[in-house]
Amino acid sequence: MKVISGGEVKELRALWREGEEIVFIDQRMLPHKLVFYRASSLKEATVAIREMIVRGAPAIGAAGALSLALSRRWGVDLQEAYRRLKETRPTAYDLFYALNRIRTVMKDDPEGGMVEAERYIEEVVERCRRIGEAGEELLEDGARVLTHCNAGALATVDWGTALAPIRMASRRGRRVFVWVDETRPWLQGSRLTSWELMGEGIEHRIIADNAAGHLMQRGEVDLVIVGADRITPGGDVANKIGTLEKAVLAREFGVPFYVAAPISTFDPSLKDWRDIPIEERREEEVLGFGGVKVAPEGARAKNPSFDVTPGKYITAYITELGVIGKDEIKRYLKEVG
Amino acid sequence: MKVISGGEVKELRALWREGEEIVFIDQRMLPHKLVFYRASSLKEATVAIREMIVRGAPAIGAAGALSLALSRRWGVDLQEAYRRLKETRPTAYDLFYALNRIRTVMKDDPEGGMVEAERYIEEVVERCRRIGEAGEELLEDGARVLTHCNAGALATVDWGTALAPIRMASRRGRRVFVWVDETRPWLQGSRLTSWELMGEGIEHRIIADNAAGHLMQRGEVDLVIVGADRITPGGDVANKIGTLEKAVLAREFGVPFYVAAPISTFDPSLKDWRDIPIEERREEEVLGFGGVKVAPEGARAKNPSFDVTPGKYITAYITELGVIGKDEIKRYLKEVG
Repeated sequence: MKVISGGEVKELRALWREGEEIVFIDQRMLPHKLVFYRASSLKEATVAIREMIVRGAPAIGAAGALSLALSRRWGVDLQEAYRRLKETRPTAYDLFYALNRIRTVMKDDPEGGMVEAERYIEEVVERCRRIGEAGEELLEDGARVLTHCNAGALATVDWGTALAPIRMASRRGRRVFVWVDETRPWLQGSRLTSWELMGEGIEHRIIADNAAGHLMQRGEVDLVIVGADRITPGGDVANKIGTLEKAVLAREFGVPFYVAAPISTFDPSLKDWRDIPIEERREEEVLGFGGVKVAPEGARAKNPSFDVTPGKYITAYITELGVIGKDEIKRYLKEVG
Repeated sequence: MKVISGGEVKELRALWREGEEIVFIDQRMLPHKLVFYRASSLKEATVAIREMIVRGAPAIGAAGALSLALSRRWGVDLQEAYRRLKETRPTAYDLFYALNRIRTVMKDDPEGGMVEAERYIEEVVERCRRIGEAGEELLEDGARVLTHCNAGALATVDWGTALAPIRMASRRGRRVFVWVDETRPWLQGSRLTSWELMGEGIEHRIIADNAAGHLMQRGEVDLVIVGADRITPGGDVANKIGTLEKAVLAREFGVPFYVAAPISTFDPSLKDWRDIPIEERREEEVLGFGGVKVAPEGARAKNPSFDVTPGKYITAYITELGVIGKDEIKRYLKEVG
């Protein structure tokens, strides 16, 4: 991703290795400060994951892979390192996948972890780049896209999922304009997506989540692209709270609605969208704003962190294998195995 | 409205007269502090209106009426007082109506302003109480209502519009539960509606605006009640940004959607919803909150303050003359004149 630092534009990733250190963009400090966090011990690496210096399932997986590969040089036993890394974020599927893959290699070849970790990260990045390739054709010159939350390079090491087609179209010289939902309660849109778009020089406006319907009604949105946390074989999508609202509005106002995600996001074990558990997060996230307490003393909140958008609201899925329709998902899952 | 103050429940209005003073609940300090602002000069009264110590068109109208009636005792010439009060908030229709009505009386009878001002305020309150009477029948015991923004007693002197049926049902012993949209960017829901409901002892939960669709999809909302700023004779409703989103979602998920407003909100001069101008407010409201800047330096926002909900999404209108359907609006407007 392109990042503005000290008046210059640099090409950076969410994290990378330098010798025996892992360097992270400290996402806690964004967008006001671009600060790097350097992990040169297993303890520092686990802090980076646990304290959300790095966030987003693919980026967490990458951090786990590099940390396990470096653990030997950091003087920590493989099993001990595996256990401590696995405990950092108990629900991130990508993290477990990455740790298992690196451990399997290191059991046979203790020095082979680093090559495998870097291969894994390149696969993650390449999948996102190919999502960009597949999706950029949807963006005509001058297209006005609405996105929700941050499905960007910060969450996926580079390129992003929903932001990959936007980046790709922009780098190929097309003008793209983005409506950025601020995405309450965590404000990933106004804090992170806006910051990524500033780095790429892509024109955008932040809006209150409440304003998206109004803009669609007035014909000011050409298409919507969002990311996904999990997708059922029937095409139902679990994603950040508010995604469902945008999808219903898009269908009502005739705006195409795309979900960008790698094939690995489709979960063949899910029979129905009602099987997807919805994480409830702390009430305080809703009761305040950016550290300022807003609601009355004693007031309560409900804070579901995700919702599920049934496939009927979704125009198509932008994957590394191309833009696919709902009816094609099961065939692709069979091919990929 | 019932208000908790020093551990006791008191019955208060948004503003009232005490001798030659007007006492306001200082809405800038809510919900964290219940502070009263006392105006004992025309200058202090104009500050109250301009600085949003009092807000909401009906409450502003009431403040203007009392201020003009008191202006003589405050030693200000009638025309001078009228002019200075009219300049405080240039777009509040209720303010102009109230000032004209009091001035007309005072021209003939300089001492008659106070009686007329208090009569006007009682009319405003009585209309809201009757909206409560008309709407409370919609709320069965245990009903779960969703509301957006603050259409409460703070904005209308007492009772409110959307909150009047909820208050009335609760005072008559029915259990009502309210989902309170926090209502970005100004957070009227989490700051003001929640505070009013705490005073009444009505159970509620604040939610991010993004969560309403999810709750409707899961069958956790029985009905929606919102207020209105202006309504066309065809039944299209201008109200706080985000109202349109809730209305589209309600129809999609089979949830009845009601608009509570006095008949005076229906504007016979409006031919079509596209005739209603949409106020754009400052970008800073979206870029942060309460002095905390969230978005990156240099980021831009778009901040439409209202949207228009076409009548096809609205189940019925709760007015002081009863709950009326879209097809009845024109007949009622003719009767009222």
